Amino acid sequence: MRISQLAAESGVSIPSIKYYLRSGLLRDGARTAATQAEYDEDHLARLRLIRAILGPGGASVAQAQRLIAALDDPPAGAHELLGVAHAAVAGAAQGDPAAREEVSSRLRRAGWDTTRVDPAVLDAVASALRGLADAGFEMTDDALAGYLSDAETTARREIEGVPTDSTEAAIRYVVLGTVLVEPLILALRRGAQEIASAERFGGRRFST
Amino acid sequence: MRISQLAAESGVSIPSIKYYLRSGLLRDGARTAATQAEYDEDHLARLRLIRAILGPGGASVAQAQRLIAALDDPPAGAHELLGVAHAAVAGAAQGDPAAREEVSSRLRRAGWDTTRVDPAVLDAVASALRGLADAGFEMTDDALAGYLSDAETTARREIEGVPTDSTEAAIRYVVLGTVLVEPLILALRRGAQEIASAERFGGRRFST
Repeated sequence: MRISQLAAESGVSIPSIKYYLRSGLLRDGARTAATQAEYDEDHLARLRLIRAILGPGGASVAQAQRLIAALDDPPAGAHELLGVAHAAVAGAAQGDPAAREEVSSRLRRAGWDTTRVDPAVLDAVASALRGLADAGFEMTDDALAGYLSDAETTARREIEGVPTDSTEAAIRYVVLGTVLVEPLILALRRGAQEIASAERFGGRRFST
Repeated sequence: MRISQLAAESGVSIPSIKYYLRSGLLRDGARTAATQAEYDEDHLARLRLIRAILGPGGASVAQAQRLIAALDDPPAGAHELLGVAHAAVAGAAQGDPAAREEVSSRLRRAGWDTTRVDPAVLDAVASALRGLADAGFEMTDDALAGYLSDAETTARREIEGVPTDSTEAAIRYVVLGTVLVEPLILALRRGAQEIASAERFGGRRFST
């Protein structure tokens, strides 16, 4: 199909498609004339994936490039795959080592084997706790323990669900599950808060 | 203090402070001369809050303006407060009504009272599920039920913890807890995934 049809089928504008082509997110079509190229179903599928990562997934173009590189050229083991997916989203560890060590020791006290955790993830936890503290909101060990326990419940179920019969399926699950499930988790938390708040404090109903 | 000292104490650059002043996130200092103003501890505290919301909180300037407006001029009840905080982050509902209704009926089947949930939150759930589907990743009812149950556990504990003895404390908890806890939840999920993945698949240790 021509680029105009690709745009019509995908709902992505021609300028956006051209931008994805230039940034390497979408591979070039087969050239049929000096100013014309032919696209196929693979382009359409990839375009939907790019939109999902950049849109609901909330990733930057640079993050999307790294995620798509991980999909196209995945490491051998499922655990390494998770590391690549997390690194694609988080980037390299660049936090303050003292803050990272402080967070590590809090997590270890709560029973986590922090030698298994990417330093970039520890930095992200430290950054989130510092943001809360800066806002006048120190998180107690008890409150943190609640979030740790919830994270373990979610993550164990997710890792248990990694398919091992198909590499392709495992890659999609791990790489995309990391990013695309995040907005779902946050939206469901807000919804559940509204229900819990209505139960505790009363409050208006929205029209169905 | 002068703006230069405010910058030194807060670690925020003078151009950024001037930008926050122009955008109304930070109120003006007391003018002491044509080109000089005096700032105080309140400015410093507000600056830390702005940085937390824009940095780890990941909010846009427009979202930060709405969150800070909610802090400065809060509604009377705790439940309304949550609504204002969520609206500040999510914006108005503008999703496809058919997709919203489909998501509502999935959530109702799982036992949620969706009349209590802001339509903008339902739209966010629908958008996340559509992103997953576009990436070739249909979420089954079973998988969704897991995330719903985790969200309920987190949200019930959070709403149970809303302080009711101090309005100021309740406002900070609800408005900032909505936004600033999000990066913590996502970072902890990644850490917990890495630990669970190392347990299931084996895998390298990071140096402590």
